[in-house]
Amino acid sequence: MKKHNYSAGPCILPQEVFEKSAQAILNFNNSGLSLLEISHRSKDFVAVMDEARAIVLELLGLEGKGYQALFLAGGASLEFLMVPYNLLKEGGKAAYLDTGTWAAAAIKEAQSFGNTTIVASSKEENYNHIPKGYTVPADADYFHCTSNNTIFGTQMKEFPSLDMPIVCDMSSDIFSRQLDFSKFDIIYAGAQKNMGPAGTTLVVIKEEVLGKNGRNIPSMLDYAKHIKAESMYNTPPVFPIYASLLTLQWLKNLGGIAAIEKINNAKAALLYAEIDRNPLFKGAAAVEDRSNMNATFLLNDEVHAATFDAMWKAAGISGLPGHRSVGGYRASMYNALPLESVQVLVDVMKELEKSIQIPALSN
Amino acid sequence: MKKHNYSAGPCILPQEVFEKSAQAILNFNNSGLSLLEISHRSKDFVAVMDEARAIVLELLGLEGKGYQALFLAGGASLEFLMVPYNLLKEGGKAAYLDTGTWAAAAIKEAQSFGNTTIVASSKEENYNHIPKGYTVPADADYFHCTSNNTIFGTQMKEFPSLDMPIVCDMSSDIFSRQLDFSKFDIIYAGAQKNMGPAGTTLVVIKEEVLGKNGRNIPSMLDYAKHIKAESMYNTPPVFPIYASLLTLQWLKNLGGIAAIEKINNAKAALLYAEIDRNPLFKGAAAVEDRSNMNATFLLNDEVHAATFDAMWKAAGISGLPGHRSVGGYRASMYNALPLESVQVLVDVMKELEKSIQIPALSN
Repeated sequence: MKKHNYSAGPCILPQEVFEKSAQAILNFNNSGLSLLEISHRSKDFVAVMDEARAIVLELLGLEGKGYQALFLAGGASLEFLMVPYNLLKEGGKAAYLDTGTWAAAAIKEAQSFGNTTIVASSKEENYNHIPKGYTVPADADYFHCTSNNTIFGTQMKEFPSLDMPIVCDMSSDIFSRQLDFSKFDIIYAGAQKNMGPAGTTLVVIKEEVLGKNGRNIPSMLDYAKHIKAESMYNTPPVFPIYASLLTLQWLKNLGGIAAIEKINNAKAALLYAEIDRNPLFKGAAAVEDRSNMNATFLLNDEVHAATFDAMWKAAGISGLPGHRSVGGYRASMYNALPLESVQVLVDVMKELEKSIQIPALSN
Repeated sequence: MKKHNYSAGPCILPQEVFEKSAQAILNFNNSGLSLLEISHRSKDFVAVMDEARAIVLELLGLEGKGYQALFLAGGASLEFLMVPYNLLKEGGKAAYLDTGTWAAAAIKEAQSFGNTTIVASSKEENYNHIPKGYTVPADADYFHCTSNNTIFGTQMKEFPSLDMPIVCDMSSDIFSRQLDFSKFDIIYAGAQKNMGPAGTTLVVIKEEVLGKNGRNIPSMLDYAKHIKAESMYNTPPVFPIYASLLTLQWLKNLGGIAAIEKINNAKAALLYAEIDRNPLFKGAAAVEDRSNMNATFLLNDEVHAATFDAMWKAAGISGLPGHRSVGGYRASMYNALPLESVQVLVDVMKELEKSIQIPALSN
């Protein structure tokens, strides 16, 4: 049966990425060797790394604008530490926007590192919206935000303009929508949503913001060292980077971010329309902040949960249960999820409505 | 043509690892989903992680001895920082043995972190041997060594007994030979030699050594946090861990470390015998410290280099050139390299000798 994979991450990737990466494991570039057994310094893998770093800047419209792309290991959680190490001055101050679990984790790491101000938080309302109208202290060394909140289903639609470096964790919506990416000085993202499998983290850095905080930075946490080594300071996670390149090539061939944004808008519109129309369901997040990547929604009456769960499972849908912090359901609609899969979910929601109305009428 | 892959790492892995991991990318556990698109919290992947952690302790003979195995991201280079963060006290001292490029990199990171003593070094002799007869200061917080030096072809045959935690970087020879692994308190190893593809780092920790240095440790660098989270503090590098599990299963089925050690001994004996016998070649490392994983050797007369290079390439051998710090040749004979590949190399060395002697006789 056709599967409809709504996993929140690691998540669905294009089918051709599975096929091409499996082939590379058996025989890479017709070399007779597996991608897994070649040196990361070999000509063939250096070409992969170079193309992966270049295609990122091309897709984001950042070529020739003083940016460098790195594919690091460690996960986005390591960036929570690397960002203050690289940008926070001794005695300086960092400014963070608290929009969800991952934003809070970044804040916790920065707080244990140095002086950190939370400019605004929606924690008291279980992160059901993005705070607005906040002020960022003019003397902060940088401002940090999280563009999309996977767990709560909210997404920043606007970003502040500030006279300081802006750092954004885009783990769960990078490459999904057009933005002026040159507004950001550091963008980072774990691969495992729109970019590839788990195991590598993309960091895009405007080089001019580095080397200004006067700290002694441990080698592996030093963005400048990774840039100088062309993202090969140590042995990089070869397979996750190759699979990420394949995913980015797929996106480029599709027409880039502009093309996928149209598809993502159509998927989100279809599902949110049904959430709002169907009397059995309600959305969990503030309407103006709804994420196009992760739609969180609830049954108005939990009594229908068992029926609904059986129905979507029977339709081949997986990964739909919401995170325990929100409950209900979360439909993650990353780049590789086809519109067809959203239609299947919407049809199941309509079916549930019908199945409940009929017994009601017959009583 | 059959390939004989002598790459120093990432390196050859068992053929069944390539086949099974490629299959898992297309359809994991007959789920209809790719290994790359499932949640790391799914039952199927949690089982992979649990088995990978358990098989490590089983193979090393460390079950029930207070050890925990972690599969982290970041590369062994990140452990250069994590070790002092977790073991070095404020105002304390670390003791390091300097046996090669990677030992020196670990030392550099520790030095930038705190007080670090080098107990002995073979740097002045281009690391061609393992220093012996050194004294480790009794007041050191821990002792750090590197069991095998990939670049220089040396390997520690004995380890000191000390009243302090012993930390060992076993990146390039773990799982290759029997040792009393319970002598060590922290063992770490990048996967990409004997354990799997690049992208994950194994850390084996005697839990009792943690939590004693009184430091505020950043979350992602804190071994205790990773242990508490059962190696899932953040999204782990799913594919590299799965391929590592397959490699460790292969080793277990083969008979474990005792079985592979015999094969590794046979491979090393075959090659070193030829290096010592063949008048055209000489070994680069002190005989008593020769590595069974990486044999470094040189031509006595560089004039034969072009001929030799053409001959081994024609025989399907790849990855043989030595590291620029040593020159000559390096034959990396990791677990998955078959004895047959060593025989092919030895035959080429004999062929070279013959091809040179014949014109000499005809003159």
